[in-house]
Amino acid sequence: MPGEFELIARLAERLPLSRRTILGAGDDCAILAPSRGPGLFTIDSVVEGVHFDLRWSTPEALGARALAVNLSDIAAMGGRPRACVVNVAIRRGLTAAFFDRLYAGLKSEARAARIDVVGGNITRARELAITIAVLGDAGAQVLRRDAARIGDEIFVTGTLGDAAVGWRILSGKIRAPQAVRKFLVGRFIRPTARLMAGERLASIRPVPAAIDISDGVMQDLGHILERSGVGAELDARALPLSPAYRAVMGGDLSLALGGGEDYELLFCIRPGYRESVLARRLRVGVHRIGRIVRGKRLRILGADAPRIAGFDQLRARA
Amino acid sequence: MPGEFELIARLAERLPLSRRTILGAGDDCAILAPSRGPGLFTIDSVVEGVHFDLRWSTPEALGARALAVNLSDIAAMGGRPRACVVNVAIRRGLTAAFFDRLYAGLKSEARAARIDVVGGNITRARELAITIAVLGDAGAQVLRRDAARIGDEIFVTGTLGDAAVGWRILSGKIRAPQAVRKFLVGRFIRPTARLMAGERLASIRPVPAAIDISDGVMQDLGHILERSGVGAELDARALPLSPAYRAVMGGDLSLALGGGEDYELLFCIRPGYRESVLARRLRVGVHRIGRIVRGKRLRILGADAPRIAGFDQLRARA
Repeated sequence: MPGEFELIARLAERLPLSRRTILGAGDDCAILAPSRGPGLFTIDSVVEGVHFDLRWSTPEALGARALAVNLSDIAAMGGRPRACVVNVAIRRGLTAAFFDRLYAGLKSEARAARIDVVGGNITRARELAITIAVLGDAGAQVLRRDAARIGDEIFVTGTLGDAAVGWRILSGKIRAPQAVRKFLVGRFIRPTARLMAGERLASIRPVPAAIDISDGVMQDLGHILERSGVGAELDARALPLSPAYRAVMGGDLSLALGGGEDYELLFCIRPGYRESVLARRLRVGVHRIGRIVRGKRLRILGADAPRIAGFDQLRARA
Repeated sequence: MPGEFELIARLAERLPLSRRTILGAGDDCAILAPSRGPGLFTIDSVVEGVHFDLRWSTPEALGARALAVNLSDIAAMGGRPRACVVNVAIRRGLTAAFFDRLYAGLKSEARAARIDVVGGNITRARELAITIAVLGDAGAQVLRRDAARIGDEIFVTGTLGDAAVGWRILSGKIRAPQAVRKFLVGRFIRPTARLMAGERLASIRPVPAAIDISDGVMQDLGHILERSGVGAELDARALPLSPAYRAVMGGDLSLALGGGEDYELLFCIRPGYRESVLARRLRVGVHRIGRIVRGKRLRILGADAPRIAGFDQLRARA
């Protein structure tokens, strides 16, 4: 196992930094330039055996994914990522070359999202875990979970359930034709944070409510309902499914409704927006899947309830 | 094992927040009020079996310590803590009551340091780990590792080596009389971040170089030397030792020089300051232990080199 100091030095080495960072890795703290507006702050972690398996993922993809799941939280607030600090818990059996590749993936994702990696910490542990805290700049408006109003229409970006199917393909629970396997597995291994869509969504007035879909559309919509004190009706027939999802799952909506890890955005917006108009504005596919109603319940219309994983759990909460 | 959502809810529950926080835990990100000056950003982690053992520490002390080791990094830059986000990796066998007590300790430390706990994340894992990212406000000047100049005198706050002795008492490697055991163990289990000393140090001109002593005075001074491109002479006879340290270790300086976890501050300041003047100014005990010299080497004067743990390692680096 490479030494901890060596690994920190590798992480800090030649990290390109923007002018928003005064001092990057190498001191007790990074020093950031003053922010102009409000800041966004979040932390997330990926743990070996829980969120990933090294048999499935290259080190580069793992590094990129560890950051992407955090960036998705910034996207869900409509903000712009600014700086992050990275904690890596390392276990025996991993080489210095492994970490170079992990950091390469992380840095590549950071470059694409224009975020500075300003600090790191390495600790020993029994399992590999990457925990990242991200600081973002909020836009003029912030997308919050508590802003859904009765009558709002509910939209999602992209397609639903692909990552959950991909994960089950990898873990041998579902078989898939080769033609669709790569797409579905890729949606799990290498999710895209919808940063541009989030930022553009935050410019709409009145500001929509939003959340990223990390735990499945039902559970994440449930968070919006709880925070906003409203109910919702979802139209199961309107859920956007990829051709690959349909090829594997047919008409089974359980993973589109209950499967997580999609990192798409779900948002609630005042009625009247056409899908095509929103798609152009957000520069990503957008589908209307339901509406916000009075009450506290989440009703799924047009689906065979018992077949939906997690449905009862959510109904119990609502 | 309590549910993950239940634990997040407990963490977020009734957290008192300052006006610097617009929105605390419960959304995808926390929202922070704009900062006036530069920010400080750091992350640190404590892992079961590496940094702590539940047989030695109450859950309250563990929660407080997990935050304190992060606050120490803010202290070492002369800043004021502002907001933190907490990631807890939980393993089987821990009860909801355990987490309530862990959070109680964390919140109590947060209250004392006037820092807002603005978000959290819970993940499953095979071992308990608490990773905290802290955001601070920098003062008019920042204490950096790269600011030591030839001729500077080197000081430390408090006493050295107590925590390292305490850790060895807990793990059964050292025996200690009951009269001193509690003090030494307490210095390990429940370290104090020198926030006020750091903030006051940052108001001195020209601004001193500083670091917190987490890995031992030799290794941490080594970081300053490396970043500042200078050497140093330490006077082993000047190291501040507690009566408890002397009672257990006698004249053996190995843990005062090489032992970590003290979380005292080491700083390099232009010559001429008396210990008593600095102690009054920083409101903590302060001792002069050496000076910055030309070159790259760290020399220890007045000590029996081979008895000092880590000495050769550091000499090799310098």
